[in-house]
Order: sequence, then structure tokens, then C-alpha cells
Amino acid sequence: MRYGGIEAGGTKFVVAISDEHQRIIKQIRIDTEAPAVTMPKVVEFFQDNPVSAIGIGCFGPIDIDPQSLNYGYITETPKVGWRNFNFLNVLKQALNVPMYWTTDVNVAAWGEYCLGAGKSSQHLFYSTVGTGIGGGMINNNQFYQARSHPETGHIPVRRYYEDNYKGSCAVHGDCLEGLAAGPAIEARAGVKAKKIASDDDLWQQEAYYLAQACMTYTLLYAPEKIVLGGGVSNQAQLFPLIRKSFEHQLKNYVDVPPLEQYIVHAELGDQAGIVGALLLAEKVYNG
Amino acid sequence: MRYGGIEAGGTKFVVAISDEHQRIIKQIRIDTEAPAVTMPKVVEFFQDNPVSAIGIGCFGPIDIDPQSLNYGYITETPKVGWRNFNFLNVLKQALNVPMYWTTDVNVAAWGEYCLGAGKSSQHLFYSTVGTGIGGGMINNNQFYQARSHPETGHIPVRRYYEDNYKGSCAVHGDCLEGLAAGPAIEARAGVKAKKIASDDDLWQQEAYYLAQACMTYTLLYAPEKIVLGGGVSNQAQLFPLIRKSFEHQLKNYVDVPPLEQYIVHAELGDQAGIVGALLLAEKVYNG
Repeated sequence: MRYGGIEAGGTKFVVAISDEHQRIIKQIRIDTEAPAVTMPKVVEFFQDNPVSAIGIGCFGPIDIDPQSLNYGYITETPKVGWRNFNFLNVLKQALNVPMYWTTDVNVAAWGEYCLGAGKSSQHLFYSTVGTGIGGGMINNNQFYQARSHPETGHIPVRRYYEDNYKGSCAVHGDCLEGLAAGPAIEARAGVKAKKIASDDDLWQQEAYYLAQACMTYTLLYAPEKIVLGGGVSNQAQLFPLIRKSFEHQLKNYVDVPPLEQYIVHAELGDQAGIVGALLLAEKVYNG
Repeated sequence: MRYGGIEAGGTKFVVAISDEHQRIIKQIRIDTEAPAVTMPKVVEFFQDNPVSAIGIGCFGPIDIDPQSLNYGYITETPKVGWRNFNFLNVLKQALNVPMYWTTDVNVAAWGEYCLGAGKSSQHLFYSTVGTGIGGGMINNNQFYQARSHPETGHIPVRRYYEDNYKGSCAVHGDCLEGLAAGPAIEARAGVKAKKIASDDDLWQQEAYYLAQACMTYTLLYAPEKIVLGGGVSNQAQLFPLIRKSFEHQLKNYVDVPPLEQYIVHAELGDQAGIVGALLLAEKVYNG
């Protein structure tokens, strides 16, 4: 038994196969170029390494409504060539196996849910904070989705009192992503995030924004745990600051678990997405 | 066949029975006093008017997790006597019929979903904007809930550029409820909301806050429709302003249905809650 996984990102694809014990046997990286260049390489990989099912996490927005005529498409992306691309169908035409189709952030959420920081939680909210901000909610073994999947990175936020940065979101300017994703941190600091001192005030400000977002996620999703992944999860000094600011902002309005267990960093690092995709292949194979 | 409904609010209970066609046969109002005064009146009503099942929508926060030791309790309310009150169990001891237990806002959401403004929607977000603000998400015939039910009225919001009002939320001050619920509108105006001219700038400001909240609900819940009930649903001039501000804030980041169909006012008025409770009685009876 072999499972396949695809983590389709805006700059690279990670493609892998695992055995029946979910050990990864082979994993490659393919640059994201035009679909006509990238997709045949993906297909070729699985022709050389046959699998029984494939889990796919794709950059978006994507259409995940099985009732929709555009189910399986990438929809509104600004990425040339990929807009309105029938991703799932191209794969299904070439590789006739069951496929699980969801967002890139959802596969990472699934990885953390099954094997990472969320592995004992029934109600997990996962957010990646890196070049962008995205999130996925897993509730009793299912991704939250309704008319579409969530886009949790672009919520409006109030500003930190001394923050005058205009924001880096190309659409909204100073939404959460525009004020708190990696590019915003680095634009203010003038250096890469990893070069910012761990006691710099910028981390206090970052913590304020992420805590505010965690408050909104708490009030709307009522998760059991919030896992933060992406580049931010490497900034260990942030987490105590986030928890403190969260407590200050929420003011105990709703009960939450002890904060050291409630707002935590991801554990699987860069592997969360591909691991989740492989686990979702197993899930779709088993029905 | 008779169904029973209870809409338990902080100032009054509405209690009713309906026939098998969901026509309301009898409906009474009971003031919310101490549990020892109010609950026996509820029990007496159903002893005089026997029913096969009861749907209950209760003010909260309440415990709705069937696995919890406190399932069926009102938990953190500041209302004297009702804090940590075992509401559901008191009723079950007295009236041995199946009961559906959820929040007051959820029963109103259910009423609008089945018979009101949301009746053709599979993914409905309902919010009441009155003395307070609360919301419920119905997704494919089920209320969204995870570790607990949502508390959508207390999300942080950015301020309208010329609004200096401190906010009326006793806990957070200037959260959404603190800036946009009825008491905040009336505190700024110095008169009752119904006496504020329909072209007053205050409505523009109110629309900004509600549109901002609708943006957050859209990004996290991805509903098919947003229904706004409570006192605000009587302010017809607000809805075009909300839609315009919503468009301005969201900037087409995600696809939504045409706004005239997407953000709409509730249709059942004060009856939404009790109608929803009666329909939930039928739902629990039919398993």
C-alpha cells in the first residue's frame, strides 16, 4: 500500500509517497511554474511511483464545494496561468485514484491535528503565519467549510497604539495579514525576521495582533486549541507575549483552557503540509 | 401531536405550544425572576399543556457539550440566581420528554433558517443586534459548535474614524457589542434608536461596524447568507449602507452572492426565537 501527497504552494510543490505506516518513502520538490510545466512533472512522479490515493493541499482560493461546477478549480489567484485552472480534474484524468482536495493550510492543519501539536484535540484551529496568514478549523474530524473554505488571514484588526505602518496586504492594506505577516514585520524592522532581537518591541506588537486574531478565532470557532505554524512558530519568545496579550484583550469573557495549552506553536515545521496530505490520502482511501 | 418551545431570555421567557403543523396554539410570557420563581411557572404551563418534545433556547453562556459534566447548565451569567443553574435537568426532572438545548440566538437563527429570511440557504449566519449582539451559524442543518457555542458579538473591531464613544460593553468596553448594540447607539444619540432620523450620520457609523463584523463572519464562516435580526432589523435604511460599507471593506477578496441577497434583515421579528424553539422540538422528537 502506497499513499501520495501533494502540497501545492505558490512557489513550490512538495510531492511525496508514504507506506501503509505513513512513513515517507520518497519526497521531491517541484518549482511552481506554469501549469503546463509543473503538472506533468507531478503526474510523472506518480506514474513512476504508483499510489492508491492522493491527498492534495492547494494554494487558493480554490473551489471545494462538491456541488459546484468549478469543484477542483483554483479560482481567483493572481498567479499567471493558475487562475481558473481545473487542478483536480487534470490530475484525475492522468491518475485514476481517489483524491482528497483541500487547501494548503488545511493539509498542514491536518498534519498537526494527527501527529503534531493538536494530536489530542477534537476542535483544533490551525493558523500559519509566514509570508501570508491563513487558517483552518478542524471540528470532530472534519474541516470547517460552508459555501467555501475560511480565509482567516484577512480579518480587520485594530491597530497597536504606536503602529503607523501602512500594511503590506495588496488587497486590504492593513488587515491582519497586512500588519502581522512576515513581510510586515520585516518592512518595519528593515531586516529579516530572524535577525530581529528576541527582546525587540516589534515582537510585543506582533503578539498584540496575533492575540487579537486568536480572540476572534476563539469567539467564532470556540476551538479547544490554537496551533500557530509557519515562520512565526520559530519565534519562541512570541508565545508568552501572545498569551499575555490574549488574556488582556479577552478579559475572561469565555472560558478557555489554560493558555499554555491553548495557544501553542506547531510541531511539524515544514513537513506539516505534506504529512497532512499523505494522511488525507489514507482518509479518502478508507472512505 | 403537540410541541413545546421555550425562549429563555434575561428579562422574559416566552413559552408556547404548537400543533403537528407547527401552528402556535398557545403562547405566554413569564418574567425572568429567580429560578425558583420562574421555572415552576414554566413547568406548570407544560403540565397543563402536555407536549411530546420541547425545544429550548436559553440566554448564556450555556454549556452545550453533551460530554460535559455541566451540560445543560447556564454557566457564567452575571444574572443573580441563574449562574451555574442546571436549567435542562430541572426541566427534565419535571417533564419527561425529549428536549433540544441550545442558545437563545440559535433558536432565532433556526426560525429564520426554516421559515424566515434564510429559508432557501444551506449555510446561514444569523446575528441579532439589539440590547446585545449574538450570532449563530447553521451549516448543512446543524448549528456550528465546537468546544462551546460561538460568542460573535464580542469580537474586536476597528473604530469608525470620527467615533470617540468609549463603548458600552461591561467587559470589553469597545468591542463590537460595545460600539454597535442598541445601548451604544442610544448613548451617542441621547434618544431612543427609533427616534433617530433615518438620515442621521449615526446610521452610517452603525453600518460601518456591522459591515466590518459581516466581513469577519464572511471570512471565517463562509456563509451563503447573513441575516440580521433584533432591533436593528427594523431600520430599513441601514441595509443599503451596510452592503456598501461591506463592499468597500472586503474589496472583493472572496466571492460572495449579490449583496442584496447576501446581507438581509430578519423576517420573523420577535417570533423568530419561539418559532425556532418549536421547530427544534420537532427535530429532536423525530431524532
